[in-house]
Amino acid sequence: METITTYINDNKDRFLSELFDLIRIPSVSAKEENKPDMIRAAEFLKDSLLKAGADKAEIYSTDGHPVLYGEKVVSADAPTILVYGHYDVQPAEPLELWNSPPFEPVIRDGKIWARGADDDKGQLFMHVKAFEYMCKTGNQFCNVKFMIEGEEEVGSVNLEKFCTEHKTMLAADVILISDTTMISLETPSVTSGLRGLSYVQVEVTGPNRDLHSGLYGGAVVNPCNVLCDMIASLKDSNGRVTIPGFYDDVKECSAEERTEMAKRPFNRDKFMQSIGVTQLKGEDGYSDTERIGIRPTLDINGIWGGYIGEGAKTILPSKAFAKISMRLVPYQNAEKIAALFIKHFTSIAPEGITVKAEYLHGGEAYVSPLDTPEYMAASMSVEGSLSKKPIPVRSGGSIPIVSTFEKVLGIKSILLGFGLESDAIHSPNENYPVVNFLKGIETIINYHQQYRFQKK
Amino acid sequence: METITTYINDNKDRFLSELFDLIRIPSVSAKEENKPDMIRAAEFLKDSLLKAGADKAEIYSTDGHPVLYGEKVVSADAPTILVYGHYDVQPAEPLELWNSPPFEPVIRDGKIWARGADDDKGQLFMHVKAFEYMCKTGNQFCNVKFMIEGEEEVGSVNLEKFCTEHKTMLAADVILISDTTMISLETPSVTSGLRGLSYVQVEVTGPNRDLHSGLYGGAVVNPCNVLCDMIASLKDSNGRVTIPGFYDDVKECSAEERTEMAKRPFNRDKFMQSIGVTQLKGEDGYSDTERIGIRPTLDINGIWGGYIGEGAKTILPSKAFAKISMRLVPYQNAEKIAALFIKHFTSIAPEGITVKAEYLHGGEAYVSPLDTPEYMAASMSVEGSLSKKPIPVRSGGSIPIVSTFEKVLGIKSILLGFGLESDAIHSPNENYPVVNFLKGIETIINYHQQYRFQKK
Repeated sequence: METITTYINDNKDRFLSELFDLIRIPSVSAKEENKPDMIRAAEFLKDSLLKAGADKAEIYSTDGHPVLYGEKVVSADAPTILVYGHYDVQPAEPLELWNSPPFEPVIRDGKIWARGADDDKGQLFMHVKAFEYMCKTGNQFCNVKFMIEGEEEVGSVNLEKFCTEHKTMLAADVILISDTTMISLETPSVTSGLRGLSYVQVEVTGPNRDLHSGLYGGAVVNPCNVLCDMIASLKDSNGRVTIPGFYDDVKECSAEERTEMAKRPFNRDKFMQSIGVTQLKGEDGYSDTERIGIRPTLDINGIWGGYIGEGAKTILPSKAFAKISMRLVPYQNAEKIAALFIKHFTSIAPEGITVKAEYLHGGEAYVSPLDTPEYMAASMSVEGSLSKKPIPVRSGGSIPIVSTFEKVLGIKSILLGFGLESDAIHSPNENYPVVNFLKGIETIINYHQQYRFQKK
Repeated sequence: METITTYINDNKDRFLSELFDLIRIPSVSAKEENKPDMIRAAEFLKDSLLKAGADKAEIYSTDGHPVLYGEKVVSADAPTILVYGHYDVQPAEPLELWNSPPFEPVIRDGKIWARGADDDKGQLFMHVKAFEYMCKTGNQFCNVKFMIEGEEEVGSVNLEKFCTEHKTMLAADVILISDTTMISLETPSVTSGLRGLSYVQVEVTGPNRDLHSGLYGGAVVNPCNVLCDMIASLKDSNGRVTIPGFYDDVKECSAEERTEMAKRPFNRDKFMQSIGVTQLKGEDGYSDTERIGIRPTLDINGIWGGYIGEGAKTILPSKAFAKISMRLVPYQNAEKIAALFIKHFTSIAPEGITVKAEYLHGGEAYVSPLDTPEYMAASMSVEGSLSKKPIPVRSGGSIPIVSTFEKVLGIKSILLGFGLESDAIHSPNENYPVVNFLKGIETIINYHQQYRFQKK
């Protein structure tokens, strides 16, 4: 291993300054205005792969943001690892809550602070640098392919088509993804499951314009009040979602599974402290980690309507809106759940109110078995670099594309993530510890060696 | 009357172009950025009064926006009319819904289109021009005083202090206000009552930052969902407000009163059509007009929280906000209702959620008896200019200051309004028919003569 750690140590300043150049490109996939930045980010990574030693690297345009593909094939008998990652990031708003500008990365307290520091530029770049090591030192044990998209944060809307059209080019034994968290470097973990996602936006309309709340209030139905009524009715007093059929496809975990998962260290007080709340609440009958890991949810991501400016404006608003997302568990189907939501939500609208509900995007949940060469290699490579066997953990997050890969390409994914829950991804002051970045590179190199060995 | 109508007719183009100059000043009292415009609007009206023939006109600074006072006293035995109006306007947002820029008045279809065309620049300016006629033609039958403030749309927060400090200067027999509507010029009405207002803003906080809805969703209480729950619980299935004590001081109207009020012409279909709804709903057991005229309400004026930008952002928000106003009926006290609201709203917050609730402003309801010289003069002056006896109407709107005048100055107000419900005040495309503006001037001149006669 010496050579690996030495190489990483000798080059870490360059690795970081290259990553910072990538982070400085504000590639926010949700925003029209950042379209040129998406191209720049893809071009940047194309150059990085070629410099690292790729045989080829090509940018494929899609109906949305482009996909970057690169590869270096060493031998027909070697297994092939397809690395997936994304160069797009979440919007940085609310900007006023950042301690330093989101797209000007800085290192403070041993952490990189910036939008994308972890999700996913920081984690993706570990693979680029691991790949560089393997090429430069001639220690490449597996064929390597890269598929890097720019629409993960908006639902990977064009990637399924891309996979279908390039099935042969993407052929591989395993897909390796670093876009998740581990408990800590001291208590390493590998994500063995993910939740799905079904994201909808609703628009509730009352009168055809904002009305004077005095001259009309009392007789005219207020769409903001109605939206609150409708949303409130979506959960019962036990914290269960009331949409008919919502739980139909949920497969309850066995007592054994739940006992296994309960071994995952979880400090409730520390967890509450880290997010500044004095109490946790959720679906009755499940633990905090189960509520996040193995149960579906319904959360308002955003709500707005009427006058939201300074001071007091006495209007009865014309419209109210909400962005509502449901996290899904294995066997729930994103589009089916969205259809159930829309049917129910429309049906509970009171007379005189019109409802528009739209499915924005989603994806299915994912579970990885623990006895495959793919998972074994992950477990061993982590143990190799962090000197501790990782715990398998069911994460609450979603990477909808993972199940699409299985469906379209017939390839299982391994989620070898090095983020921490404290990295505040999707939030102001996103950060990523430098040591995780470096240990990640080392572990990924181990994985390629271990996987070659496991497949022998 | 010949001379009056002739004078108005000969000068109407000048009247309108002067009014337009006033409207072009964006005097939005709720916005810090418009502070200089508030001064400009007050100065403009000061010059108008002096040009019209006022003995004096002076701008008094307050802790907020200035108050303009002007007067012309003709005789010690003549009764004194104190004209009240406001030069501030509501914010114009949402700007994209205006058919022409809000602060560039235009005349289309016989109407003035602009923010403030009716509320209250258009209606206030009728008094200025009526006053000009009386001065120029020597037909001033009453002493005239003007008190014009710049904070009506934000709760007249500094006017009570001003009245207390200038009680002698403001001494009068009646306060004449044109800041309300009439049914139509064909079915004239005089507002004999107003609702009060209690306006609060609430802030609901969960986690100390926006969280990833996947990594936390299910276990962490979502403040947007909670705000919806809390707001939904503020009304029961009969449309009644559930805040303990909310109805305690409400004096039910007698069957006789309700029969009288029911005579007011109201076309439900036309009303629904005018605001583009297919159904009306409100408190059970009351008619549409009663729900607006004699019953208290609770309406969301604005609500916001989480990500409200383009696309999909998967966060569990840190905060949610709402602006909530309650319209009050006689004997309900604005501050008492706000206190009841805040106490109740805070008490229903679930554990782990912190609530801030703030009383922004408010005022009491108002009722005017119909057998006083003040009201008789109003009724007769309307009959004089519109050839029809006006119907007394209880309006759903609020002019909180009216009850303050009675309390501090001991003077009753008469609400001689010429707006129409179709004027869309507080909404995009506010408008005011030119004929109402001109008929208003004529009626106001009549009022001064009638009142002198009634007081004899």
